[in-house]
Amino acid sequence: MTERSEGIGRPTVRRSRDVPLLVGRAREGDARAVARLITLVESGDPLLPQVAAALAPHTGQAQVIGLTGAPGVGKSTTTNELVRALRAQGHRVGVLAVDPSSPFTGGAILGDRVRMQDHATDPGVYIRSMSSRGHLGGLAATTPQAVRVLEGAGCDVVLVETVGVGQAEVEVASLADTTLVLLAPGMGDAIQAVKAGILEIADVFVVNKADRDGADATHRDIQGMIALGERGPGEWRPQVVRAVASRAEGIDDIVAALEKHRNWLVEHGELRRRREARAAAEVEAIALGTLRARIGSLRSGTTLGALAARVADGAVDPYAAAEELLIGLERG
Amino acid sequence: MTERSEGIGRPTVRRSRDVPLLVGRAREGDARAVARLITLVESGDPLLPQVAAALAPHTGQAQVIGLTGAPGVGKSTTTNELVRALRAQGHRVGVLAVDPSSPFTGGAILGDRVRMQDHATDPGVYIRSMSSRGHLGGLAATTPQAVRVLEGAGCDVVLVETVGVGQAEVEVASLADTTLVLLAPGMGDAIQAVKAGILEIADVFVVNKADRDGADATHRDIQGMIALGERGPGEWRPQVVRAVASRAEGIDDIVAALEKHRNWLVEHGELRRRREARAAAEVEAIALGTLRARIGSLRSGTTLGALAARVADGAVDPYAAAEELLIGLERG
Repeated sequence: MTERSEGIGRPTVRRSRDVPLLVGRAREGDARAVARLITLVESGDPLLPQVAAALAPHTGQAQVIGLTGAPGVGKSTTTNELVRALRAQGHRVGVLAVDPSSPFTGGAILGDRVRMQDHATDPGVYIRSMSSRGHLGGLAATTPQAVRVLEGAGCDVVLVETVGVGQAEVEVASLADTTLVLLAPGMGDAIQAVKAGILEIADVFVVNKADRDGADATHRDIQGMIALGERGPGEWRPQVVRAVASRAEGIDDIVAALEKHRNWLVEHGELRRRREARAAAEVEAIALGTLRARIGSLRSGTTLGALAARVADGAVDPYAAAEELLIGLERG
Repeated sequence: MTERSEGIGRPTVRRSRDVPLLVGRAREGDARAVARLITLVESGDPLLPQVAAALAPHTGQAQVIGLTGAPGVGKSTTTNELVRALRAQGHRVGVLAVDPSSPFTGGAILGDRVRMQDHATDPGVYIRSMSSRGHLGGLAATTPQAVRVLEGAGCDVVLVETVGVGQAEVEVASLADTTLVLLAPGMGDAIQAVKAGILEIADVFVVNKADRDGADATHRDIQGMIALGERGPGEWRPQVVRAVASRAEGIDDIVAALEKHRNWLVEHGELRRRREARAAAEVEAIALGTLRARIGSLRSGTTLGALAARVADGAVDPYAAAEELLIGLERG
C-alpha cells in the first residue's frame, strides 16, 4: 500500500564475487558502498549471508546505543546533538533510524533522510533510515546486520533510533548495549510507554524539553517508577537526565550517563552477556526466517495445497498435516 | 507481567487416553467438556494434536463469522443480538471472544465472560473469551482449533469476535467465512481502521448506533471507500447495514447480509477456496510453531549458546551460525 521508489539506492551488486569488493570499499569509508550494503540488508537480498561473512571479522567492537520514545519527544534533535558531541570526542558515528511500521500503517515515518543535514558533509558520520517491511525475521534480523555494516565501515558508535513504543521498538532497543528512552513533559503517552514495558529495557531516561511546564512532574514520575522497580544489589539503576536538545542543553549529561552505563556494563561482565544474548536472538531469527521461507516455497508446490484440502475436508487434522509438512521439509 | 490465575479452569485431562472421552462428552453437549477443550487449546497443551485428531471427522461444516471493530462500537451488544436472532432460526451458536493483546498491554480486555448473561442458561449457545498470550503460532494457530472444538460440540454457526483493528485482528478475521466490521458514528478510529487495511477483509459493514449524529456521514464515508475499492466483475461488493444493536434494530438486516454473503460464497466456489486457504495458513502456523519450539529447546542446550559466543566474537557470521543451527535441528 505504500509507494516506494524501488529504483533508487538499489544495490548494483548482483554476484557473489562483487561482495568482497563492496565490503572493501565500505571499509575504506566509501559512503555509497555503505548505503548499498544497507539497502542489501534492508531488502533481504540473497547475497546477505556473503555480506555477513565478509563483515564478521571486522565487527563486535562498536558501542551500540538504542534511542527510543513516543513521537514528538525530540528524538531527531537529540540524536543530532548526540552525534555532534560524539564527533567532538573523535568518534566515528553511525545512525540507523529504524521504522518498525506495521504492515498496515505503512509509510516512511522516518524517511526524512535530510533531517540531519548538519552532518551531511562530515565523512565521520553515516546516517540511514531503514524500514523492515517484508523482511523475513523482521527487525530482529535486519537491524543487527545494518549495525554490522556501519561497524565494518569504521563506526565505533552506532545509534539506533526507533519511533514510538511497542513490541518492535522494545525488540530493537534490546539489540543495543545501552538503551536511552526519551520522555517529554505533558506527554502522558511517554509515561504510558514506561508502564507498558519500556522500564525494563531503559538504561538511561532523558526528560527532554525540560524547560517546559510539567518537566518536574515528568521527572518525578519517572524517578518514582524507577524507585518502585525491583532490582537486585548488582543491577543497574536507570539514570534520569534532563535536557533541552533544541538548545543543545544537557547533551554532555546524556553522554556522561551513556559512558557511566558503558563502564558499568564492562565492569560487571554484562556487555559480553548482552552481546551473546543478542547474537543468540539474531541467529534464532535468521534460522526461523530460513525455515519460514522453506515452508513458503512449499506453498507454491502442491504439498501444502493438497494437505490443506484434506484438512478442509476433515480428512486429516491440522497437526498431523503440519507434521507431514515438516517431514517433507526435512527431506526436501 | 500479568497475573493469571493458573489454577482456574485448567483441564484435568492429563493423559492421551482421556482425550476421546472428553471429546465425546463435548459432542454430547457437555458445556464443561467444551470449556476444558478450549482451555487446552488456549494453553497450547501437548495433547492438542490428539484433540485435533479426535475432532477432525466432525468439523468443516460450521459457518464461521468474524466480527471486529474498534473499542466502543458495540461489538458485545451486536454479538448478543446476533446470537438471539440465530437461535430464533434454530442454529446452535458458539461465540469466541478473542483478545489479541500484545505481550506488553497484557490484561484480559474481553475477560468479562458474564457480559452475555442473556444466553447463560441456553444450552444451544457456548460463549468463551480467549487470550493467545504465549501460544506458539499465535492467534492464527489457536483460533481455528477453538472453532473446531465448538463445531465438534455441535455449533453450526461460530462467531469470532476480536477487539480493535490491527494485524492480529485482520489475521483472525481472515479465518472467517464472512467478516463483519462494526463502525459507529463519530469514531474517526473506525474510518482510520478501514483505511488501514480492514476494507480488504470486510464482507459486511455495520454502521451501529445509527440513531446518533454523524451516522449518515459514516455511512457515506464507508460507501465512498467501497466505491473506490478495486474489484473484478465476479468479486463480492461489501454490504453496508445500519443498526442500533442496543435496541435490537437492524439485526435482521445484518443476518440477511450474512446469508447473502454466504450464498454468494457457495455459488462462486469461494467458500471452498477460503477454507482451503485457511487450512493452509493454519498448517503453516502449526509447523512454524513446532520449528520455533525445536529451536527454543536448543537454547537450553549448548548449541545456540556456543554459536552465539562465536558470533559475538566475530569468529562466525550469524547466517553461517543459523545454518549450523538448522543442520543441528534436522539431525536432532
